[in-house]
Amino acid sequence: MEPQARVAYQKIQDQLEAGDLPEAAGLLVAEHPADAADILMALEEAQRVTLLARLQRDEVAAIFHHLDSEDAADLAEHLGPVTVAEALDVTEPDVAADVLGDMETEQAAQVLGRMRQAQRVAPLLLHPEESAAGVMTPDYLALDAEMTVDETIRHLRQSKPPSDTIYYLFVVDVERRLQGVVSLRDLVVAAPETPLKEIMNPEVVSVRAGTDREEAAHLMRHYDLMALPVVDEAGHLLGMITFDDAADVLEEETTEDIYRMVGLSEEERALAPLGATLKRRMPWLLVNLFTAFVSAYVVSFFEPTISQMAALAVFMPVIAGHGGNTGTQAATLLVRGLALGEIGTGDIFRVLVEQLIFGVIHGLAAGAVSGLIALIVVGNPWLGLVVAVAMIGNVLLAGILGGLLPMLLRALRLDPALMSSIFLTTCTDIGGFIMLLGLGTLLLPNLLGR
Amino acid sequence: MEPQARVAYQKIQDQLEAGDLPEAAGLLVAEHPADAADILMALEEAQRVTLLARLQRDEVAAIFHHLDSEDAADLAEHLGPVTVAEALDVTEPDVAADVLGDMETEQAAQVLGRMRQAQRVAPLLLHPEESAAGVMTPDYLALDAEMTVDETIRHLRQSKPPSDTIYYLFVVDVERRLQGVVSLRDLVVAAPETPLKEIMNPEVVSVRAGTDREEAAHLMRHYDLMALPVVDEAGHLLGMITFDDAADVLEEETTEDIYRMVGLSEEERALAPLGATLKRRMPWLLVNLFTAFVSAYVVSFFEPTISQMAALAVFMPVIAGHGGNTGTQAATLLVRGLALGEIGTGDIFRVLVEQLIFGVIHGLAAGAVSGLIALIVVGNPWLGLVVAVAMIGNVLLAGILGGLLPMLLRALRLDPALMSSIFLTTCTDIGGFIMLLGLGTLLLPNLLGR
Repeated sequence: MEPQARVAYQKIQDQLEAGDLPEAAGLLVAEHPADAADILMALEEAQRVTLLARLQRDEVAAIFHHLDSEDAADLAEHLGPVTVAEALDVTEPDVAADVLGDMETEQAAQVLGRMRQAQRVAPLLLHPEESAAGVMTPDYLALDAEMTVDETIRHLRQSKPPSDTIYYLFVVDVERRLQGVVSLRDLVVAAPETPLKEIMNPEVVSVRAGTDREEAAHLMRHYDLMALPVVDEAGHLLGMITFDDAADVLEEETTEDIYRMVGLSEEERALAPLGATLKRRMPWLLVNLFTAFVSAYVVSFFEPTISQMAALAVFMPVIAGHGGNTGTQAATLLVRGLALGEIGTGDIFRVLVEQLIFGVIHGLAAGAVSGLIALIVVGNPWLGLVVAVAMIGNVLLAGILGGLLPMLLRALRLDPALMSSIFLTTCTDIGGFIMLLGLGTLLLPNLLGR
Repeated sequence: MEPQARVAYQKIQDQLEAGDLPEAAGLLVAEHPADAADILMALEEAQRVTLLARLQRDEVAAIFHHLDSEDAADLAEHLGPVTVAEALDVTEPDVAADVLGDMETEQAAQVLGRMRQAQRVAPLLLHPEESAAGVMTPDYLALDAEMTVDETIRHLRQSKPPSDTIYYLFVVDVERRLQGVVSLRDLVVAAPETPLKEIMNPEVVSVRAGTDREEAAHLMRHYDLMALPVVDEAGHLLGMITFDDAADVLEEETTEDIYRMVGLSEEERALAPLGATLKRRMPWLLVNLFTAFVSAYVVSFFEPTISQMAALAVFMPVIAGHGGNTGTQAATLLVRGLALGEIGTGDIFRVLVEQLIFGVIHGLAAGAVSGLIALIVVGNPWLGLVVAVAMIGNVLLAGILGGLLPMLLRALRLDPALMSSIFLTTCTDIGGFIMLLGLGTLLLPNLLGR
C-alpha cells in the first residue's frame, strides 16, 4: 500500500469503528481508485461490502478496474446483481468480462441479464483466458483511411473516447479489416488537411485472437507498443490489448514461473487465508515428501556400507547439497532465459555443450576441493577419491539435467518452470548418493584399509 | 528472436558469407530496429562491428535504443568516437547516457567531447544508476498554464516532439516547478479555446530524483501511468520516466530477485561466454560448497551414532530435503510478495503467526507420515518417534526462517532475495541433522533395543 493510502486506511477504519459509514465512504472515494482498491482489500470482508454498497456505480467501476478480477468477483457476489450490473455497465468491457468470468456462473448470468452493454461484453467471455483475445478490450477507434487529420480530431472531440483506447487509432477498410495504425502523436503533429492514409503506418504489428497472451505481451515489450491490435483469421479487427493489461500479464506469468519452480501453485500468496493455503500447498508438500523418501530408499540399500564406514554419511550432505544448488542455478538461468526470449528450443545443443564444458571445469574444481578436504580431515586417501569422483559426477549430472529439463519441457510445449527445482534436487540427491555410496561399497575394503 | 527476424538473420548471414556487405546492411535496416538489435547480437562480434560501421547514424541510434546498454557500449568501443558521437547525438539523451555510462571512462570522455548534445546528456551521467533520475529522459514537454488547447496543438505541430515524450504534457510555472499534467488525450478531446489550466490535473504523481528506480516503476504500474515526472527537492521538473523504461526496470529487478534467490549474479545469462560465467559463478559455488561442508561438519559429530544405527543416515535426506523445500517455498512467497508490494515490513508479525500455524499443522502431518513410514518399514517404534520429532521441528524451523529471513533483510534495507535459498537450505540441513542425529544419539539405547 502507498504511504498516503495507509494514512487514509487508518482514518477509514476509525470512522467505521465510530459507525460513521458516510464519512468512511467519502474518505475512500477521495483516494485514487488504485489506492481505494488496496484500502478496500485491507478491510474485513463485511466492511468491504457495506462500504462498497454506499458508493456510486462509477466509483465502484473505477475500483473494480484496479482490483484483481478474483477479488472483484468475490465482492460482486455479495453486492447483488442490480448494483453489480450498473457498475459493470460503466466499466471497460474487458474488466467487466474478467469479473463476470470469475463469478459463479448462475450469479454472472443474473448480472449479464441486467447489463445494457451485455452485447459487447458477452462475446469476450467466449475467449480462453490465456489467449490474446482473453485480455483484449473491444473499445478501440477504427477510422477510414480517407478521413483527414482535422476531421479525425473533430470526431475525437465529439466522441470523447476514454483515455486508454485513444493512443493508437486503427485504420480499417469497409469490412473492418486492419489496414494501418496512426498514433495519437502522429495525428496531433500532422497538418490538419492530411488524410490518414498518408500518415498511417501500414506495417501494423498484430496478433491473432488465439495467440498466447504471454506471447502477445512479449511482442508489445519487444516493440515498445502501447497497444496491440487483435485480429481474426481473416484480418478483421476484434479489439486491442493495452500496455497496462500487457504488464499485468507479464507480472502474472513471471510470478507463475517463480512459484512453479519451487512447486507452489500460481494462486498462492504470502498471507493467503490459512484454509486456502493448506488446500493448495499440502498436496505438493506430500509430493515433496514422497520424493524425499525415494532418496531415502536409495540410501537404504547402502545401510551395511554406512554401518562400516559412517564417514560416507558425513559427505552425503556435501554431494547432495552442492549438486542441488548447481542444478537449481542452471535450471533458473534456463527458465528465465526462455521466459525472456533470450534463448529458444533451437539452442538446445548449445545449452548442452555449455553445461558440459562448465560442468567439467566446475566438477573438477569442486571434486578436487572436496576430495582434498576428505583426505586431509579424515586422513583416508581412498575416501578422498570416492568423494571427489562422486562430486564430479553429481555436478555434471546436475548441470546437464538443470540445463536440459527446462528445454525439454518447452519443446513438449509445457511450462519450463514446472516443478523444476523439486524434480532436480531429487535427481541430484539420488544420483549423488548412488555415486558416493555405490563407489564406497565397491571400494569398501580399500576404504577400511584392509 | 521473432520468427521473421530469424529469417532475416539467415539471409544476412548468407550475404556476409558471400562477402556482400552492402546487401547485408540493407537487409538489416529493413527490419524493425528491435529486431535488427536481436539479429546483430546473434552475429559474430567482428561481423557486428563491420555491419554497424556501414549504417547511417540514425539507423545506429535506433538500434542502440533497443540494445542492452552494456552491449551497445561494447559495440561503441569498437566503432570509433566520431561515429559513436554522431549516433548518440540523434538518440534519446537517456539512451546516450546509459551507453556512455557503460563505456570505458576514457573512451566515453572522447565521445562526449565530440557530441553536440553533450550539455543535455552529461548531467544525466551524474545520477546514480539505481535512482529514478538514472532512468529518466530530460526530453519532456513543459508548457504554461495559460496556453490554450489550440495554441498547444499548433506548438506541437511545429516542434514535432518524438513519440515517447508527448503523451503527457507537463504544466510548469516560471521557475519550472511542476503544476499539473495534461494527457495528450485530454488535449485532443478538449475544445480548442480552453486554457490548459482548466483541463490539467493538478494532482500529479511525481517522484524525487533520488527515489529508488524500482519504487518509481512500481508507482507507474500501480497508477497505470505512461510517464512519471521526476522533480528535485524544490519541485522543479527534471525529466520523466517513460512506460517502456519502467517495464525494463521491473524486468531487470525481477530477474535480479530470481537469480539472487539461488545465488546467481544478476548479470548472469543462459549462454553467457564461458569465461565470464566462470568468473561470476565460481566464487558463489565455492560459498555453496563451503556451506555444504558446514552441514557435513555437523554430521561428523554423530559418526559414532551412525556407525551403530545406519538407518538414521537413511532418513537424513528426508528431513533435510523436506525442510529445504518448505523453507524455499516460504521464502519465495515472501520475496515475491515484498517485490510486488503485496506485503510490507509492517506485516512481520502476521507472517510469523501464519508460518507458525501453518508450520504446526504441516509439521504434524509430515511428522506423522514420516514417523509411520519409519515405524512400518524399519519396524522400530523409537526410530519412528525420532524421525517424526525431527521432521516436525525442521518443518517449523524452515517455515519460520523462510518467512522471517526476507522480512529481516527488507527491514535492514537489504534485498530480501539475497541468497535466501542457499542460506536457508544450509540452516534447515544443519537444524534437521542436529534434531535427527542428536535425538538419535540421546535415544540410542532405545533405538538399539537395549
